[in-house]
Amino acid sequence: MSAPARPRAAVVVTGSELLTGTIPDANGPWLSRELSALGFEVSHVLVVGDRPGDLAAALEFVRDAALVVTSGGLGPTADDLTGEVVAAFAGVPLELDERMRERIAGILEAWARRTGFGGPALEEANRKQAMVPRGAIALDPVGTAPGLVVRTPGPLVVVLPGPPRELQGMWPAALAAGPVAALLAGIPRAPARHLRFFGLPESEIAATLRTVDVGDVEVTTCLRRSELEVDLRPVPGDEDAADDLAAVLAERHERHLVSMDGRTTDEILAGELLARGWTVATGESCTGGMLASRLVDRAGSSDYVAGGVVAYSNAAKTDLLGVPAELIAAHGAVSPEVARALADGARSRFGADVGVGITGVAGPGGGTEAKPVGYVCFCVTTADGRVIARDPRLPGSRSDVRERSTDLAMHLLLRAVRG
Amino acid sequence: MSAPARPRAAVVVTGSELLTGTIPDANGPWLSRELSALGFEVSHVLVVGDRPGDLAAALEFVRDAALVVTSGGLGPTADDLTGEVVAAFAGVPLELDERMRERIAGILEAWARRTGFGGPALEEANRKQAMVPRGAIALDPVGTAPGLVVRTPGPLVVVLPGPPRELQGMWPAALAAGPVAALLAGIPRAPARHLRFFGLPESEIAATLRTVDVGDVEVTTCLRRSELEVDLRPVPGDEDAADDLAAVLAERHERHLVSMDGRTTDEILAGELLARGWTVATGESCTGGMLASRLVDRAGSSDYVAGGVVAYSNAAKTDLLGVPAELIAAHGAVSPEVARALADGARSRFGADVGVGITGVAGPGGGTEAKPVGYVCFCVTTADGRVIARDPRLPGSRSDVRERSTDLAMHLLLRAVRG
Repeated sequence: MSAPARPRAAVVVTGSELLTGTIPDANGPWLSRELSALGFEVSHVLVVGDRPGDLAAALEFVRDAALVVTSGGLGPTADDLTGEVVAAFAGVPLELDERMRERIAGILEAWARRTGFGGPALEEANRKQAMVPRGAIALDPVGTAPGLVVRTPGPLVVVLPGPPRELQGMWPAALAAGPVAALLAGIPRAPARHLRFFGLPESEIAATLRTVDVGDVEVTTCLRRSELEVDLRPVPGDEDAADDLAAVLAERHERHLVSMDGRTTDEILAGELLARGWTVATGESCTGGMLASRLVDRAGSSDYVAGGVVAYSNAAKTDLLGVPAELIAAHGAVSPEVARALADGARSRFGADVGVGITGVAGPGGGTEAKPVGYVCFCVTTADGRVIARDPRLPGSRSDVRERSTDLAMHLLLRAVRG
Repeated sequence: MSAPARPRAAVVVTGSELLTGTIPDANGPWLSRELSALGFEVSHVLVVGDRPGDLAAALEFVRDAALVVTSGGLGPTADDLTGEVVAAFAGVPLELDERMRERIAGILEAWARRTGFGGPALEEANRKQAMVPRGAIALDPVGTAPGLVVRTPGPLVVVLPGPPRELQGMWPAALAAGPVAALLAGIPRAPARHLRFFGLPESEIAATLRTVDVGDVEVTTCLRRSELEVDLRPVPGDEDAADDLAAVLAERHERHLVSMDGRTTDEILAGELLARGWTVATGESCTGGMLASRLVDRAGSSDYVAGGVVAYSNAAKTDLLGVPAELIAAHGAVSPEVARALADGARSRFGADVGVGITGVAGPGGGTEAKPVGYVCFCVTTADGRVIARDPRLPGSRSDVRERSTDLAMHLLLRAVRG
């Protein structure tokens, strides 16, 4: 079938530190998600270094897009060159924006008072950051760097600062700027469907997709935190096809289904605990607090997280969570019996409704033939007598084993709470 | 000065899930770091969707590089198209590699036995994954997808699978493959210098750099985990310039210096604790186990991590860590006094040499005028009487505040242990 095409957008992220691998880029994924949600088809994310020629080449490469969003290169250091390169791409000179210079000066002054850093380093930064391509719209700084909306002979270019907090803070103002708002007004919306499965391999979804008519729905799959996310993006006017496909996938893989509305295990678990007025407590060995921290991630978690103990040593298991020393001696610290005692101990010590215990061999050392690296014992117990236990061998490195253990524990918690 | 240029490399990462922002790309940063360390200048990282036209355009765009590494698109689903597009780019047909088909069949059979998934879905996946461009070198699978080394009229192209574990596992074999090894043999090496600073703004480094002769040294700065990483990359033959610059930066910003050899606070802290035979215990409120988990991140951490308590409620602070209820009533749960009691309580309950207490307002709710969101109290105490306390107001979102609190706690721990 034929359907209206979505306009294409591209993201150009600058920063040599991203190319030397010092830090992973957070802005490309964030902007991609935003642009996709607005109805753009994101064609490329390019990461380029702080070299003017490479940035210019990247802008040339994405010249056919309707919208290009750049991030970074607006800072005070000499390697921050985005304003200059975008001005050249637009064919206009840079000019000092006096209003912006004063605004930035005010921000920097407050910052200098607070931190004690100041002087000539700041003045130079101020002037550099207030240079604006002629005719461009300057967006007020969230940190100290203003953003830009620049019309060019090719795409509309939105220039945003590199720090994710500043970029995300400036995004609403960028969308509200005249030329961007005009572009957005012309885009038909077709919201995507999001399904989530736990413990289902991608190849099973692929097999199902080969047996059905997918129509014009774009299907992407992605494994994150042990959950397979399946996104179904219809073209506008073909939303029914996405709904039908979602129903088929949910039915075929029902045993693994987490949600049909994109909600994660974490979100659902928080809702279920709140609905019951229950609290949860953790007794962690190999995960070392990662599960507690994951539970506390969400705002408002104090309503359902009682607390936890990181019982890394045998003494801590016994002293803080009441795991009998004889139980550890009889079965070993990594055993289903000790996982159960950790869960019960955490529940009892914190007066919680649900307890979860995790003990395992995260590696790289410490494995034996009977209990190899990756062997992890889980137990969830509830005040009303539910018990769920597992002791899988999880693959991967030390951090893989710890992360997968945390994922699985969240999943088991949800099963226990749902009952 | 003139210096031998470094050959350029580019990374092309495929995956629509990366463009819709579902997941951040881990392979681009990892490959960038590896390629930089090998002496390449990484010109671009491109993320493209699972659309053949976009992948082909990306390969065209980086045609001038000496080496292109791709990741992803080798899986069993229909959106996995990298082999096909790279073959077209090289101008050769795809052929079934019978040896590879059998190898993959063996791997899949073992996997099917273990997981219970199998049948036609797997057989189709097998055949698709064993298709190899004529004349290319197939690299043995780490998961189920083989990699490829493909000579083209332009750059040498290395095709790797998308899952980071598989990609990283296959990397040594890719480097050892004949054409890649030959390319590497011709690259002059000039190792980078890495400096790290805690709590130093980028603008201060920029100011220092304006006062000295930087020569041909490429300087990149990057803020991660509250540490400013400064990388100095000399051109081969000019290593002295990088050493001189490192010495100047270290001297000017000595108060903030963490290390001159790239070691992180985490690495140094582990070394200092091991050297003294000391153990550490945590009493965490707002960070909720994130600090304990960070301490346990490193292999061998059981030698110096005693354990920790996530004391999210007042009752838990009192019951598990002995924080007097009157102290909480008098000063509030978020106070320097309670942070101190959490540190002492953790040290005493776990019999540790060092205790650290954290209590704060992570937000978004719960702030007051006196104790706003971001106000966090820290205390580190040692068995031999050292006490370090701080109570800053940290900026940012709930997760920012929790992460920065963890960063600062690691830094304070190191200061206390070093004495």
